Amino acid sequence: MKIALLVAYDGTDFHGFARQKHARTVQGELESRLSLLLRAPVETVGAGRTDAGVHAAGQVVSFDVSREIDPAWVQMRLNKLLAPEVVVRTAAKVPDDFSARFSATRRAYEYRLYRSPVPDPFRDRFALWVPGPLSLSKMRAAARALIGEHDFSSFCRLPEPDVSLVRNVHDARWVDLGDGLLRFDIEAGAFCHQMVRSLVGTMVDIGRGRKRAGDMAAIIRATDRAAASQPAPPHGLCLWEVVY
Amino acid sequence: MKIALLVAYDGTDFHGFARQKHARTVQGELESRLSLLLRAPVETVGAGRTDAGVHAAGQVVSFDVSREIDPAWVQMRLNKLLAPEVVVRTAAKVPDDFSARFSATRRAYEYRLYRSPVPDPFRDRFALWVPGPLSLSKMRAAARALIGEHDFSSFCRLPEPDVSLVRNVHDARWVDLGDGLLRFDIEAGAFCHQMVRSLVGTMVDIGRGRKRAGDMAAIIRATDRAAASQPAPPHGLCLWEVVY
Repeated sequence: MKIALLVAYDGTDFHGFARQKHARTVQGELESRLSLLLRAPVETVGAGRTDAGVHAAGQVVSFDVSREIDPAWVQMRLNKLLAPEVVVRTAAKVPDDFSARFSATRRAYEYRLYRSPVPDPFRDRFALWVPGPLSLSKMRAAARALIGEHDFSSFCRLPEPDVSLVRNVHDARWVDLGDGLLRFDIEAGAFCHQMVRSLVGTMVDIGRGRKRAGDMAAIIRATDRAAASQPAPPHGLCLWEVVY
Repeated sequence: MKIALLVAYDGTDFHGFARQKHARTVQGELESRLSLLLRAPVETVGAGRTDAGVHAAGQVVSFDVSREIDPAWVQMRLNKLLAPEVVVRTAAKVPDDFSARFSATRRAYEYRLYRSPVPDPFRDRFALWVPGPLSLSKMRAAARALIGEHDFSSFCRLPEPDVSLVRNVHDARWVDLGDGLLRFDIEAGAFCHQMVRSLVGTMVDIGRGRKRAGDMAAIIRATDRAAASQPAPPHGLCLWEVVY
């Protein structure tokens, strides 16, 4: 049978989601605990390969098991071992042909930033501190230019030859949550590596007046990494939802 | 001259506020950085001795300096060294007879807890996860019994003989912040050691039905530590404000 987990994690102390031989990763932790629980090696598939320091509220992880087990038991046992840093929010049996990665049709990310005269120890783990003036209306204008099908090469790390970086962005918007907190929501079929962080880095530069909102379309058209700003730091980013 | 700092900190990785010889504390970090900045040993006085793992949004720290310096410079330099874990929110010159500890007339603490079927990695650092049924109205009734002047021996760790544990609680109330988040606000002239955590532990037991709301007055009257519940964990507690 196949099981899918809806997983949330605080990515601060992980070297990203994807398993690595010599580093602590979310997938590595999940697989080692699952293998112990099920007394057999377990290989998982994740919906999104979040980078080091990136969080998730709605990562999806699927894996095969050779016998019938209760998904609620898996959830309960994993949470006893890994919560609150990694939390299985729900666990369910899924069809055998389901893949957390390849069955996904859309992914939604959120990037949070907060504005205040000095940093805030209670917000800083999951949001980027941005001091000084910032124009939300200019960042909103720039976000509108992202919607639709574009080649996002300007915002992708390590593009490989012959691999398309055309992505279809269904939605991209800045939400003012009040009390100085801003959230960037973006939804697309898939994302290139570091795409959201590079977009946010560029939009924050636009909000600060270092670039103009009207530049966003030209930066996309340039298909040149040097045209965009440096990626925003990972700790403001969260894989919010995966749609199937 | 004398300077006072308004300090916020994430207490997770500190062995409390008060300096200790062989452990990392907030006061120890502040003093070592201040001594380097001012090129002279600096001894500070704090308004509240928060325990290991307890946070502060409004700790007040005062210290003497032998020459005139700009408090804004001290703030900026300390924040470069210690933020976002420890943040100086404001810094100001104060009268020479000011003491962060002895000039304080009231202290306010907050304790946060959240209710959800599974833990939440994004809330768990600063709030206690409480699964299962919990009666807010019973917790509110219990909180009302705290207001006024009482001997809080039942809620204090290590009472010393001949030291009064009578404290005057000006306000104590549970606030429903929505989305499963509850906050206990309490204000008093001063607090005994572990008093807020012991009160919260007892009220959570009342909310869960393990004790009755009407028991609170009797637990106070008992002046017996065994009458109260175990203290709630430190990570939900925050020194919110000190009034002078």
